[in-house]
Amino acid sequence: MQQDSFVIRADICYSAAPQSLELYPGGWLVCLEGQSAGVFRTLPEQYAGLPVLDYSGSLVVPGLTDLHVHAPQYAFRGQGMDLELLDWLDRYTFPEESKYASLEYADRAYRRFVEDVRRGPNTRACVFATIHRPATIRLMDLLEESGLCTMVGKVNMDRSCPETLREASAAASAQGTRDWLERIEGRYSRTHPILTPRFIPSCTDELMGELSKIQQQYGLPVQSHLSESRSEIAWVRELCPNAKSYGHAYHAFGLLGGPDCPTVMAHCVYSEGEEAALLKAQNVLVAHCPASNMNLSSGIAPVRRFLRDGLSVGLGSDVAGGTHTSIFKAMADAIQVSKLRWRLVDEALAPLTVSEAFYLGTLGGGAFFGKVGSFAPGYEFDALVIDDTRYTPQERIELETRLERTVYLSDERDIRHKFVQGRKLF
Amino acid sequence: MQQDSFVIRADICYSAAPQSLELYPGGWLVCLEGQSAGVFRTLPEQYAGLPVLDYSGSLVVPGLTDLHVHAPQYAFRGQGMDLELLDWLDRYTFPEESKYASLEYADRAYRRFVEDVRRGPNTRACVFATIHRPATIRLMDLLEESGLCTMVGKVNMDRSCPETLREASAAASAQGTRDWLERIEGRYSRTHPILTPRFIPSCTDELMGELSKIQQQYGLPVQSHLSESRSEIAWVRELCPNAKSYGHAYHAFGLLGGPDCPTVMAHCVYSEGEEAALLKAQNVLVAHCPASNMNLSSGIAPVRRFLRDGLSVGLGSDVAGGTHTSIFKAMADAIQVSKLRWRLVDEALAPLTVSEAFYLGTLGGGAFFGKVGSFAPGYEFDALVIDDTRYTPQERIELETRLERTVYLSDERDIRHKFVQGRKLF
Repeated sequence: MQQDSFVIRADICYSAAPQSLELYPGGWLVCLEGQSAGVFRTLPEQYAGLPVLDYSGSLVVPGLTDLHVHAPQYAFRGQGMDLELLDWLDRYTFPEESKYASLEYADRAYRRFVEDVRRGPNTRACVFATIHRPATIRLMDLLEESGLCTMVGKVNMDRSCPETLREASAAASAQGTRDWLERIEGRYSRTHPILTPRFIPSCTDELMGELSKIQQQYGLPVQSHLSESRSEIAWVRELCPNAKSYGHAYHAFGLLGGPDCPTVMAHCVYSEGEEAALLKAQNVLVAHCPASNMNLSSGIAPVRRFLRDGLSVGLGSDVAGGTHTSIFKAMADAIQVSKLRWRLVDEALAPLTVSEAFYLGTLGGGAFFGKVGSFAPGYEFDALVIDDTRYTPQERIELETRLERTVYLSDERDIRHKFVQGRKLF
Repeated sequence: MQQDSFVIRADICYSAAPQSLELYPGGWLVCLEGQSAGVFRTLPEQYAGLPVLDYSGSLVVPGLTDLHVHAPQYAFRGQGMDLELLDWLDRYTFPEESKYASLEYADRAYRRFVEDVRRGPNTRACVFATIHRPATIRLMDLLEESGLCTMVGKVNMDRSCPETLREASAAASAQGTRDWLERIEGRYSRTHPILTPRFIPSCTDELMGELSKIQQQYGLPVQSHLSESRSEIAWVRELCPNAKSYGHAYHAFGLLGGPDCPTVMAHCVYSEGEEAALLKAQNVLVAHCPASNMNLSSGIAPVRRFLRDGLSVGLGSDVAGGTHTSIFKAMADAIQVSKLRWRLVDEALAPLTVSEAFYLGTLGGGAFFGKVGSFAPGYEFDALVIDDTRYTPQERIELETRLERTVYLSDERDIRHKFVQGRKLF
């Protein structure tokens, strides 16, 4: 990996905590061998010999983390949005994902997805592929080549889906997963496997048992879906009558967090009571996906309650339940839906602020990748250099306001340079 | 005005009614002297001699109408979004609008606004300026020059605002309005004045009485705000204890619709009962502004109920309560919030569909400008030529789906040509 040591001069900001924004107008950000050495108001003597990248006038923030995105759904984003989750899966998602049996189709479609993310503000992502091993490996090859840091999962599903997407048996699904893991061993430096049972309805108990063994054997992290929509939750209740909650159905197989099983669960729109307590106890990272939860009429996750109660939360684009990969857009969406939830559902849970949404999209989600999402010393050096003059012309304006406008108004055109682990992508 | 007769070959769609989408893949759209002569699957003999603009492969839809936008707020869109309406007005809006006393400042800021709208998908707009006469006329000059068709209002306000924005008296406000109207008489062909009392809290009864006289004398249309937020409604109740509703407070002065006073009212988030009945009886056009209603935590207007009950509805960007001028974005927002309203507030009111949102942004709002927002014969020829290959690559896909993706994914980069009243802007 090409790592470097250098200094960036720019208007720099990052999140130290949900309510704490660190602001360095005209600051100096030091990268030492791929890690941040901190941001300074004047450049310390000891770094005076490093090359300086002068991005004065530009905004520099940490790269964003997308905790939940379906690469094979990118091709049909913005389609079929008039349906709810389960109908949308049957009508659009499953037929499209079936096409990834063709490596040629997968290559073409995945190239577009990877190029979109590469050009956008995200530097890290937890990615769902499909059940198909060759296509999943192609996706991982493309992501590795892009310079992004990602976790990618070959999806497991052995029930409740069309035959074209149903793995022949729990054993076959497990064996396919082992084969995939062996094929990619040692192949990548920034692309990692993540165990990916699609969700409880598409995995038999037998498969979950097999995946649990694989998780332990390989020490893999886990990603899946949890409590996204009411009809889905009712379905899980039927399938798992003995589980105290949807979350407990994963937990029964040891696939819901804990020190040896880092887990990200998408949505958690209806996680409360014992399920929320379990998520906290197991330190599960909640991937809040506001756009998807609107588009599929799922609802609004109580992020304020999660934060108040000490749960870990980040953001997901959930393409193609969401339509855009940018986590800046997810920040704006998260703020907007939190306002509606406050107004319409529960006035005890205050809306999210810009500072909090920025935290969720950087440090909150970045935690799943280690020391990521901050410019504090020791964090991996993921950075965006943003030229905000398209939407914030020459008038003098405070750095905090420029950040807010970037959340609401920026798109990939405004990202001039992008660094991941100290490596310049462009 | 340069009007023309020609034929467009493209993939054409327009809305005939909320649930009725007219789709003409590879169709022929005929423009005769600035008006549509209709869309045809094969070109009728009688038009064979007209020049053909071959936009095969592109999507062509009617221009969009923004029923509610504040031009002087464009400069600070995406700022201060953590506040609610009345605080946001005091902290951001009023100080910014005060700057438009300077014609030089106004010219610079209005140029940016007009250029943004010119490049985007809207062809018609109802625009708030400020209280300042010279700046308002400069805005109208710029809009006229842009080729867009707009109605622009010098704002009236004589109470409850900082002194820099408060007109000296009701009489002075009225006189300023008359002066403005006289100054612009005969000056424009596509830029029209619209009477613009800001909202009840900023207009004394005396001023409303004066405006009523002006409305009748000049036969002007009216635009204002109605029932946007709960605190605003409570304030109006205090100010007008005798009015049956906020809407009735306008009606008491004859400034709420009826055959001789076409009126567009922004928001109507909480219009129900007698107020909603009055809006229907007076044929007031409701400007639904979903993004603004999220950003300012106002709520979600019951658009499904309005449509069901026969009220007239269109869409507004409400920049800078909203952050983007594009009415495509307002369509996506309208669908999204309608889903949340259905899920969280009232399951009797079904979410809006893409077809319905497209109707609201074209024919629904266009009605305020006459025969606008459709390609049916006799409608003014406003058209967008959209190259959707950026987000919908070469794969064959149905026209209706391409429209849906355009609603969710397009931005101004994708608009290749734009026509207003048959005149090509670019």
